[in-house]
Amino acid sequence: MFFSKLFIHTSRETSHEHKREAVSIKLMIKSGMVHKLSSGFYEFLPIGLKVLRKIENIIRQEMNVIGGQEIMLPLISPKSLLVETGRWDIYGKELFKFKDRNEAEFCLSPTAEEVAVDLIRKKIKSYKQLPIMIYQFGVKFRDEIRPRFGLIRSKEFLMKDAYSFHKDENDLKKHYQIVFDAYVNICLKCGIKFRAVEAVSGIIGGSFSHEFIAITNSGEEEIVWCDCGYGVISEKAEAVNVENQKEIPLSMEEILTTNIKTIKDVANILKLPLYKFIKTVIYVANNQFVAVLIRGDHEINETKLKSILDVNKIILANKNDIIYSMNIPIGFIGPVGLKNIKIIADLSVIEISNAVTGANKKNYHIKNVNYIRDFVVDIVADIRRVKCDDFCPKCKKEKLKFSKGIEIGHTFKLGIKYSHSMNAIYFDKKGNKKNIVMGCYGIGITRMIAAIIEQSHDDSGIIWPCEIAPFEVIVIPVNFKNEKIKKISKKIYNDLSLNGLDVLIDDREESVGVKFKDADLMGIPYKITVGEKNLSYGNVELKARKDKKNDIKILKTEIAIREILKIFKK
Amino acid sequence: MFFSKLFIHTSRETSHEHKREAVSIKLMIKSGMVHKLSSGFYEFLPIGLKVLRKIENIIRQEMNVIGGQEIMLPLISPKSLLVETGRWDIYGKELFKFKDRNEAEFCLSPTAEEVAVDLIRKKIKSYKQLPIMIYQFGVKFRDEIRPRFGLIRSKEFLMKDAYSFHKDENDLKKHYQIVFDAYVNICLKCGIKFRAVEAVSGIIGGSFSHEFIAITNSGEEEIVWCDCGYGVISEKAEAVNVENQKEIPLSMEEILTTNIKTIKDVANILKLPLYKFIKTVIYVANNQFVAVLIRGDHEINETKLKSILDVNKIILANKNDIIYSMNIPIGFIGPVGLKNIKIIADLSVIEISNAVTGANKKNYHIKNVNYIRDFVVDIVADIRRVKCDDFCPKCKKEKLKFSKGIEIGHTFKLGIKYSHSMNAIYFDKKGNKKNIVMGCYGIGITRMIAAIIEQSHDDSGIIWPCEIAPFEVIVIPVNFKNEKIKKISKKIYNDLSLNGLDVLIDDREESVGVKFKDADLMGIPYKITVGEKNLSYGNVELKARKDKKNDIKILKTEIAIREILKIFKK
Repeated sequence: MFFSKLFIHTSRETSHEHKREAVSIKLMIKSGMVHKLSSGFYEFLPIGLKVLRKIENIIRQEMNVIGGQEIMLPLISPKSLLVETGRWDIYGKELFKFKDRNEAEFCLSPTAEEVAVDLIRKKIKSYKQLPIMIYQFGVKFRDEIRPRFGLIRSKEFLMKDAYSFHKDENDLKKHYQIVFDAYVNICLKCGIKFRAVEAVSGIIGGSFSHEFIAITNSGEEEIVWCDCGYGVISEKAEAVNVENQKEIPLSMEEILTTNIKTIKDVANILKLPLYKFIKTVIYVANNQFVAVLIRGDHEINETKLKSILDVNKIILANKNDIIYSMNIPIGFIGPVGLKNIKIIADLSVIEISNAVTGANKKNYHIKNVNYIRDFVVDIVADIRRVKCDDFCPKCKKEKLKFSKGIEIGHTFKLGIKYSHSMNAIYFDKKGNKKNIVMGCYGIGITRMIAAIIEQSHDDSGIIWPCEIAPFEVIVIPVNFKNEKIKKISKKIYNDLSLNGLDVLIDDREESVGVKFKDADLMGIPYKITVGEKNLSYGNVELKARKDKKNDIKILKTEIAIREILKIFKK
Repeated sequence: MFFSKLFIHTSRETSHEHKREAVSIKLMIKSGMVHKLSSGFYEFLPIGLKVLRKIENIIRQEMNVIGGQEIMLPLISPKSLLVETGRWDIYGKELFKFKDRNEAEFCLSPTAEEVAVDLIRKKIKSYKQLPIMIYQFGVKFRDEIRPRFGLIRSKEFLMKDAYSFHKDENDLKKHYQIVFDAYVNICLKCGIKFRAVEAVSGIIGGSFSHEFIAITNSGEEEIVWCDCGYGVISEKAEAVNVENQKEIPLSMEEILTTNIKTIKDVANILKLPLYKFIKTVIYVANNQFVAVLIRGDHEINETKLKSILDVNKIILANKNDIIYSMNIPIGFIGPVGLKNIKIIADLSVIEISNAVTGANKKNYHIKNVNYIRDFVVDIVADIRRVKCDDFCPKCKKEKLKFSKGIEIGHTFKLGIKYSHSMNAIYFDKKGNKKNIVMGCYGIGITRMIAAIIEQSHDDSGIIWPCEIAPFEVIVIPVNFKNEKIKKISKKIYNDLSLNGLDVLIDDREESVGVKFKDADLMGIPYKITVGEKNLSYGNVELKARKDKKNDIKILKTEIAIREILKIFKK
């Protein structure tokens, strides 16, 4: 491709509008990969689309190898299907909903489980037709409350979504592992640094899921992991509680704590460590108050809490409501004598000997509180967030490690969640009706592009992994008007192109400085520079984008070409 | 590909729901290419998607050869852009509109002129950056009042839309011809029987456009053409009026026509041909009555009428309104003495000598009416529909031919229609600001698939042109359990596949009759049948889908393979 013919407009500056955005979107805009239409909507320009198509092809290959069959589903879904599974309401405001001219209701697909199940329930009748996996590359839509980080959280994005259907859980389990392995291959081929961790299934649902997380400090997701192989999304991480030293229970004693605001202040005064304290937090779940007990040095994990309470939503209770309804002063709540409310305690709370907690009385705390003797609870469960000095729940030897990252893929064992509510059945060998067992598997392609850039860039621009770079090599003639430089540059361009490489030649009337800057900004893995002085010795310059600034090889033209072909195994 | 592994479900019957549908969608559903989700929405299954991708690739190649640059625009457009050009309102109910959670208004793109111009006005500053053509394969949406004919008029469809930008009309003109030629190539490569005709630009607008019409009697479009090269959409065809024999004007005379209902009845009684009559039809345009005069044997062309009146909409006046407002009895309206109303006459009307027309008086007509002497009009213009005995307006020698067809492509010279309203400008060589001149070019890909099937099918199913068939060859083992048949079938499959052909092998446990029926239904161009009897002589059967039932060649296996490779030039 000739640079002068390409619809590409690089810029050195980040516009004011994008100053606070993620690095990835800044670099994509500056390098001319995308253009912003409006908040959450981006246009893919030629070199952006090239990257996207390369990733798409890597995914397509892997999906086809494991028997996936590519299809194309409509982007608009009728309301009726999402009502069958209840997701029309559960999705809430994230769903773009609208009516057609006949007042029929539709939505823009956020994912396509319902449409996929509807297709399968109409086509599949017998166990002989199972298993099957269909997949598509489809635009997806989410009405994000605050679209941000460019392509990481946009309103319209490209996704590969796959749906597999099985006769039983065992077959799903086997297939799930096959897709999992394909996802690992995809991440490796795209040059992503990632971890696959156990995840929370969320709105999609099902019993079990994995997230594929691209590791980067700019990510919103937190994962915890251990060298032993353990890895989960942090909100799902099981807490390992070290056994506390047991003390002889002492008698309860009220302490005056006037004008003391935080639990830390109480701890300072009493000269006791935070882990001797019980915090009591009041939530509202299903329109009822719930008292949640957690150790002073711990934090509540609301995901675990929701799961234990079996509700989709919990909120912190309003302070005035607490005072009004329970007649308890804020800051002094505690489990002793707490009545007419469901109480949930974290596992670590019931282990504390002689704990300190609120006395349910203004300006008073109470000490030497002991479980069973002084209070009981309705539920005891793991409801706390893990911390960096927690031990790995798998090996129990190492301390947990924490990383930040971006979710780029998610695989779900859905079981019969959808086939049950949508009545997708098949006849087994004996002629009995059974629910089809289902898995689903998504990769956010546009988000993956952003994640790769977040991982792989420097001050000069993007550093593409070779497999997905918009071009693999750029030929830079120092001066394209010089006939000799032009001739050799074109020869290199032709030789590499004919060998199947994706080559760009910068034929513009720009200074070599501008050409270098654009090549680096666009992240092209290899640069071959053709200049007058080197050429007088039959030489050209070869430099890899990822190498240091001065790491340049001066080679005979033919050797440079051969070296590039060797690198790309052509 | 092995048939048994393919997600494909053929059926012999057309479900009741689709009984009245177009042949193309019936065959696509029966052959397992698509599945209907709901009215106007279709799912593309693996073999349907294969056809679609093949067409997409043919188009992509042709677009790239002429310098088109592929991009990907969002499917959701913000209201503000369509307001700039006025299309937010003009589109009316065909546009799917909705609000996001912040009450901001959006629509689903029906086409993307505004978004394309918005991109270009932000990126293009100088004449040096022109011309440029961007294109995409994008899903498009129209809230059809009555989705019908399957993929011919669906609510969601795949389109290739291209937008070109130029410094002046002359450059647009040159480029328009280049795109036109590429469209001709695309149609030829896809094996479509088509005509490219001058068209009406409609909502997209601009000065000049061509429609590419796939010729088929099942189409909704009517075109007129001549062997001399003339071709237009029939509503746009210029009428050639043969000069009438002039008569000496006689005196006007009222005729009693009580209880005579139609103009034909009057003609019968007076023993005069219909072309001696003037019909007067009252329309409402811009809230005003307009009287339209047309010859008795002609019909009004409302497209021409709207264009002459320079309005987007006209409707026939309500009968009671006419009686009430104009005090004229229906059935007896005529131009003589007609007052306080704009009168438009077709060119042929003013040529009639001694015409007959309504007398504006109940039960009376009037004869020997002559233009100028007895009535005048405000506008004389070509406002009639052409007929099959009209002469070609280009060569004036041959009579016009009429054909029906389906619009599959449309090319537009838009000029500065969009760049003017959206202020898309560039600086010319002298530094002057100029409006960018624009063209746009669309191909309905999903509709094209349907049009090809409408053109190319028989009672047994689809007959695909080779270039876009889901598979080029099907190998049919009469009995796949027979080891010898299996071995030879697989060998043929492998030999052809390795030579780059798209081959299906029917490895199912079905009778050979079922296998033949499915192959014919799916329209696969070539069948190689491997049966025990032929094989005992080292032979297989080769048959082309388009040949007659009994037109089967019995050939040595190797010769059959060679013949197929020769056909596909491999």
